[in-house]
Amino acid sequence: MTMDLTFLGTGSAYPSPHRGASAVVLRTEGECWLFDCGEGTQTQLMKSQLKASRITNVFISHLHGDHLFGLPGLLCTVSLNLNPCSTQPPACVNIYGPQGLRQFLRVALELTSSELIFPYTVHELEPTTDQSPPEGQLSPEVTADSGRLHPQERPGRMIALDVSSDCYILLENKHFIVKAFRLFHRVPSFGFSVQEQDRPGRLKTELLKELGLKPGPLYGRLKAGESVTLESGQVVNPIEVMEEAIPGRKVCILGDCSSILGEGPLMACHRADILVHEATLSDEHREKAVDHGHSTPSMAAAVAQACCARRLVLYHFSQRYKPAGLHKEGDDDDVLELRRQAEKALQGTGIEVSLAEDFLTIRIPIVRLH
Amino acid sequence: MTMDLTFLGTGSAYPSPHRGASAVVLRTEGECWLFDCGEGTQTQLMKSQLKASRITNVFISHLHGDHLFGLPGLLCTVSLNLNPCSTQPPACVNIYGPQGLRQFLRVALELTSSELIFPYTVHELEPTTDQSPPEGQLSPEVTADSGRLHPQERPGRMIALDVSSDCYILLENKHFIVKAFRLFHRVPSFGFSVQEQDRPGRLKTELLKELGLKPGPLYGRLKAGESVTLESGQVVNPIEVMEEAIPGRKVCILGDCSSILGEGPLMACHRADILVHEATLSDEHREKAVDHGHSTPSMAAAVAQACCARRLVLYHFSQRYKPAGLHKEGDDDDVLELRRQAEKALQGTGIEVSLAEDFLTIRIPIVRLH
Ligand SMILES: [Zn+2]
Ligand SMILES: [Zn+2]
Ligand SMILES: [Zn+2]
Ligand SMILES: [Zn+2]
Repeated sequence: MTMDLTFLGTGSAYPSPHRGASAVVLRTEGECWLFDCGEGTQTQLMKSQLKASRITNVFISHLHGDHLFGLPGLLCTVSLNLNPCSTQPPACVNIYGPQGLRQFLRVALELTSSELIFPYTVHELEPTTDQSPPEGQLSPEVTADSGRLHPQERPGRMIALDVSSDCYILLENKHFIVKAFRLFHRVPSFGFSVQEQDRPGRLKTELLKELGLKPGPLYGRLKAGESVTLESGQVVNPIEVMEEAIPGRKVCILGDCSSILGEGPLMACHRADILVHEATLSDEHREKAVDHGHSTPSMAAAVAQACCARRLVLYHFSQRYKPAGLHKEGDDDDVLELRRQAEKALQGTGIEVSLAEDFLTIRIPIVRLH
Repeated sequence: MTMDLTFLGTGSAYPSPHRGASAVVLRTEGECWLFDCGEGTQTQLMKSQLKASRITNVFISHLHGDHLFGLPGLLCTVSLNLNPCSTQPPACVNIYGPQGLRQFLRVALELTSSELIFPYTVHELEPTTDQSPPEGQLSPEVTADSGRLHPQERPGRMIALDVSSDCYILLENKHFIVKAFRLFHRVPSFGFSVQEQDRPGRLKTELLKELGLKPGPLYGRLKAGESVTLESGQVVNPIEVMEEAIPGRKVCILGDCSSILGEGPLMACHRADILVHEATLSDEHREKAVDHGHSTPSMAAAVAQACCARRLVLYHFSQRYKPAGLHKEGDDDDVLELRRQAEKALQGTGIEVSLAEDFLTIRIPIVRLH
């Protein structure tokens, strides 16, 4: 199964002609998962190779406009462009994000008389009070929903912190486990970890034939991890006749933050193949960055190192940093300097550093350990 | 005073890489008035020569997302880019639009913890029940506002239809009168007429000198329309010593509609210098257009003719119509065909037809009648 990550917007605070507002798509075969949806994401999607209609899950890291204002319009446009005569009933779009997201979407769709031809569900994450300064916390009367579901809205869950793992379990199926974890920002913010399940290795069919085992039900039992007894009485253990397991990949995408919170992020992101972390300002502006709830490259590097990530990708750059291709000799703010700062902080660790740019796609290869 | 109109988005339904969602700016000296604010308007503004910080009035024709979803983000970005240390207190931004707009904006700003450094007011227009099919009308519980004003929100008016003029009086000052009028669409929609006040002509200073009148207080009295008696006993009437009055210009911008409603639009748009009217689909698709509450070029032409407008500008094109510059030989949907259809319908009337394109600016000259 191929997996890749496409950045649709890498700018902070607002979309500009040079950098869209936050939006990242994780694509696996046939499905797109969207992480954040700043204003203009639908237009960035149209400019990319991705299909908006393939979006099945949306994850909103926090309720700042540059991560959210594109969501109502995106859903409307996906609906307009779906074939209403399709024989297959459209799948439900699952939307995960902080408490208050349900009411935001409901009011935006309801007041604009936006009909959708597919169902959607909002699952809300309950933040803890230490995820932001007190003034960043929304009062219950603000986050409370109206009680009037949109005609296409299906009731969603309220997901509380799982104290033992210090994270939020969002979904688990035979391919993936997705968790959220807590970050500190001006408003409660979350990161997401997508862990692909390990898959059993292939059967060594040549070896099985030598043992006299022909393709059939016994192959299935071996694949499922059971031992099999041959007519000769010989017991065949799965481990003897199977290739090494295919290790699941792990992709972690963090929302805006000036720090991670608790043990959850470290556990959820441990040995991530890719850790996507914001770096809004350069190390020289660390104080200002932290004041605004943001990080610098060396702060992002410290998180990557604490998680033993394989690769760190920086994004969510202040709009003062033009894309490298537009940088002119003598300009003050060079985005490449952000990469150098992270690289310097990670010297000797073997952790690779990349800068995201709008429309950059990164493949996530399977890494075999032996 | 110069006046011009800049189209920031000319596409219908959603923003695309070829056409932004609806947004038009009327610029007079120093001020920008924004008509509709679809998603991506702030980015289109950045690409244009206009300054978002100059926006003092916003008019929303109707509560469809392609005319509205850019508004919360635009206000946030204007605020971020205003100088917080400016000695002048920032002016209040006045926002006019249908009932429900206040709650939309309040919820969007409140849930995203969006602080603004300038005050804003939403003045709501009360639609009548004949502006849309029943299913397009929002129930009072949906349009009701939360009662919690945003910290920067100033209480706004509820503006009801003025039955005698069949229109809504939005603002009147020494330069302009702005009215709204009713349109029929899938949801209640409005058009706006901006009428510049006539200004007195210049004094004929050569003539005044011949009469022995020197610059001074008497000049002011003549300009104000008073007669003046010279030492010789001769009475000078203003009309004898003043150039012709400078006629006020009239710019009318209509929201989505399949028809105008009542006498209001005809009176408010009578002899408009520019009438901006939607033409979502071509005349061949008239039935579909009307079904969706939209117009075709010959429908727009009929409105222009009924209003005795000088110039008709078409906009809000289906995204199937690429800008003329991108049209390829053999493509089905040619936007120039929309102009031809309107021109044909207006043959012999002298009404000029133009197609809007993103970033097109149209100057509105003073037309002297004699
Ligand atoms: Zn952000
Ligand atoms: Zn943020
Ligand atoms: Zn529209
Ligand atoms: Zn509409």
